[in-house]
Amino acid sequence: MMNAAFRPFRLVILLFLPALSWAQTGSDDFRPAASNVLNAEFPKIAADSRVQLRLKAPDATKVQVQGGDGFRKEPLDLVKDADGNWNGTIPSAGPGFHYYWFIVDGVRVNDPGSDAYFGYGRPTSGIEIPVPTEDFFLLKKVPHGQVREQWYHSTVTDKWRRAFVYTPPGYDANPKKRYPVLYLLHGAGENERGWSLQGHVNAILDNLIAEGKAKPMIVVMDNGYATAKGDTPAATNTPNDMMKRAATLEQVYMKDILPTMETAYRIQPGRENRAMAGLSMGGLQTMLIGMNHTELFSHYGFFSGAIFGNMLAEPKTAFNGVFADAKAFNNKVKLLWFGAGSEEKQFVTMATDTRKKLADLGIQSTYYESPGTFHEWHTWRRCFREFAPLLFK
Amino acid sequence: MMNAAFRPFRLVILLFLPALSWAQTGSDDFRPAASNVLNAEFPKIAADSRVQLRLKAPDATKVQVQGGDGFRKEPLDLVKDADGNWNGTIPSAGPGFHYYWFIVDGVRVNDPGSDAYFGYGRPTSGIEIPVPTEDFFLLKKVPHGQVREQWYHSTVTDKWRRAFVYTPPGYDANPKKRYPVLYLLHGAGENERGWSLQGHVNAILDNLIAEGKAKPMIVVMDNGYATAKGDTPAATNTPNDMMKRAATLEQVYMKDILPTMETAYRIQPGRENRAMAGLSMGGLQTMLIGMNHTELFSHYGFFSGAIFGNMLAEPKTAFNGVFADAKAFNNKVKLLWFGAGSEEKQFVTMATDTRKKLADLGIQSTYYESPGTFHEWHTWRRCFREFAPLLFK
Repeated sequence: MMNAAFRPFRLVILLFLPALSWAQTGSDDFRPAASNVLNAEFPKIAADSRVQLRLKAPDATKVQVQGGDGFRKEPLDLVKDADGNWNGTIPSAGPGFHYYWFIVDGVRVNDPGSDAYFGYGRPTSGIEIPVPTEDFFLLKKVPHGQVREQWYHSTVTDKWRRAFVYTPPGYDANPKKRYPVLYLLHGAGENERGWSLQGHVNAILDNLIAEGKAKPMIVVMDNGYATAKGDTPAATNTPNDMMKRAATLEQVYMKDILPTMETAYRIQPGRENRAMAGLSMGGLQTMLIGMNHTELFSHYGFFSGAIFGNMLAEPKTAFNGVFADAKAFNNKVKLLWFGAGSEEKQFVTMATDTRKKLADLGIQSTYYESPGTFHEWHTWRRCFREFAPLLFK
Repeated sequence: MMNAAFRPFRLVILLFLPALSWAQTGSDDFRPAASNVLNAEFPKIAADSRVQLRLKAPDATKVQVQGGDGFRKEPLDLVKDADGNWNGTIPSAGPGFHYYWFIVDGVRVNDPGSDAYFGYGRPTSGIEIPVPTEDFFLLKKVPHGQVREQWYHSTVTDKWRRAFVYTPPGYDANPKKRYPVLYLLHGAGENERGWSLQGHVNAILDNLIAEGKAKPMIVVMDNGYATAKGDTPAATNTPNDMMKRAATLEQVYMKDILPTMETAYRIQPGRENRAMAGLSMGGLQTMLIGMNHTELFSHYGFFSGAIFGNMLAEPKTAFNGVFADAKAFNNKVKLLWFGAGSEEKQFVTMATDTRKKLADLGIQSTYYESPGTFHEWHTWRRCFREFAPLLFK
C-alpha cells in the first residue's frame, strides 16, 4: 500500500493541524465515509482527512482517482493488488463535500461506494469529509423545515421544470403566516438539487433559525438552465452562452418562477421581502437578472460569482444605469454581498474588481472570504451561513 | 453501424406494433432520450424503441452495454469507431423506465448522458422509453401535489433518516383538512427516492385524483434499510437478511415513522385511513410488518412481492394467527391486493401461491397482472395505477 510513502507529508499535516485526533487514534483509523451508500466499505477516511479509495477492476490496465480542487486536482495513480482491487490514498482532503471520480483506462467512472450528485454536467461521485471544528451544516435536534419538489410548466421553455423549495419550521402549523423569500441559484454543471443535497442549505437554515440568527424564510432553488421554446440550447459554459442562458432564465423567472412560487407558497409581498443569490454561474445570473429588477429584489448575494469584467466596463450605464445614482441605489438595495474561497484566486479577484468598480461610484457592498477553501461546496455552505442572517432585517 | 443486421427483427416489431409511427418517420429517426441530462446527444431512441448507445473510450479494449430485464439482460458488445466512440443499438427496449450500464474492460460504468437513479445498491444510469399508448405516469396540466423531503432522527437506529412524503393538491390551501395515508415501500437495492423519481408516483396520483379515480391521500415513502443501534447490518439480499431487516424496520415504523408522520402531516386518524404497500422487498416488508399490525392498517398492496413460501407454510398460525378466522379477517382488512408483471414468472408464482394459501382459508384477495413487463418500474407504475383507486373507499 501507499501509506509509507506519505509519512513525511503526514508530519506536515500534524504540524498544521495539531488539534486533530488522529495522533491519538493511530494511523490505521480509516472508517467508511458517512456519505457511503448502504454498507459500502470504501471510500474510507482517517481522522487526519486521508482518504483511502478502492475500485475492483481486475481487467483494467490503468486506474486513477481525481476530484475537484480541495480533494485531488491532479490524477493519482492507483495500484492493483492480487485481488484485482486498485488502491490509493489521498494524503489530505479538504473539509466538507467533494466531487471525485475514477479514471479506468481513460474513462471517467463513478465510485460504486458513494452516492452520485449532479455536477460537471453529469451524475458524479461525492464524498463528505468531516470537519471537526464546524457543525453548522449538519442536521441537529432542532425544528426542521422541509424541502419540497415543485413541478410547473414553463410558458417560456414549453417544458416541465422542477424546483426545490425550502419551507421553514412551523410553515404548516401557521397556515396564515407569510414569509420572505430567497431565490437561490446553483452553478454551472449542477442542477436545482445541488443547494439542498450538496449544500445542506436546509440544515444550515434550520440551525440559524433555531439560534435566532436568521429569519424564517422560504428558499426557492430552481434550475439555471433554460432554452426558450424553439430556440437552440446555449449549451457551453463560455461567457456568451452563459449570458444567453441568463437572458432566457430572466424570462423564466419573470413569467414562470415568481408567479408560480408566489401563488403556491405563502410569500410576503413586496421587494423588501425578496432576495436573490447564487454561486458561480448562479452569481452571474443573480447579477444579470437581479440588477435588471431592483423593483423586485432588495438583497443580493454573489458566492464565487462569475462576474465578467466587461459587464461593468462602464458601471454608470451598466444595467440601464442602475448604479448611476449611488445614494438612491444604497437606499433601495439593502444588501450587495460578495463571498469567495481564499484559494479560488480568480473568483476572489472578480469579487474584488467588481466591488472596487462599485465603490468608485459610491455603492456599498459586503465581502466575506472563506479561509482555505476553493471553488467548492464548503465555500458556498460558509457563504450561505454568513449571508442568510443579513437578509430581511 | 449495426442497423442493417437488425432489419429482420424490426419487421417482426412492425407486425406486432402496427400503430407505432416509425414506419412513417423512417428508420433513422433516432432522437435524444427525454431522460438525457442537459443537452446530451446519447442515448437516442427511435419510434420503434430501438436505443442507440455511445460511450467515448478510445483506450478501452472492450465495451458492452447491459441493463435490467425489459432493456437488455445479456451484455451487448459495442463496436469502436475511428473517433474512439463505442456504439451499439438495442433492437427493442420495453416501455418505461429501465436501469442500464456500460461495462468497460470489466468495470460497470454509468452513462454520462443519462441521470443516475439509486438501484442495484448504487447510483445507476436510467433511461425512459416512451410508451405511445400510455400517459398515466406523465406530468399533465392538472393540479399537482408536492413531494417533500422529511428528515427525522430514529430512536431505533440512532441515525438521521430521510423520507419523501407526497401531499396531494390542495393540501396547503385547506389547512384544516386531514387525509388518509399510504405507507409505500421500495425494493432491494433502491431507496426512498425510487417511488417518486423512477416511479413517478406523484404524477400518477395527481392524474388519478384529477380524474376523480383516487381519493386525495398522503403517501409516505421511507427507506427500507434499517440497522438497530449497535447491531450488525443485515447487508445482503438473502431471505434471512431480508427478514432481519424487516424486523428492525417494523420497530422503525412503530417507534419513529408513524409517530413522525402522523405529527408532521394532517393524517386522518384510524386504521381505516392507513394503508401499506411495497414492491419486491417492500412487498415482503408489507407482509411482515403489515400482517403483524392489522390494528393499524386496513389496505395492503404487494407489487411483485418477495413473499417466501415458508412465511405461509402454516397459514393458520402465521403472523400470530391473523388468518385463522377468515370471516373476521375479511371484515377487518378491506384490501389484500397482489400484482406482478406477466414476464416475471417467479413473482407471478409467488403471488399465485400466496393467494391460493389464503383462498384455501377463505381469505379474499385481488390480483392484477401487468402485460408484457418484467421485474421493473413499468410493472410497479401500473400496479400503483390499479391499486390506488381501491384505497379508502
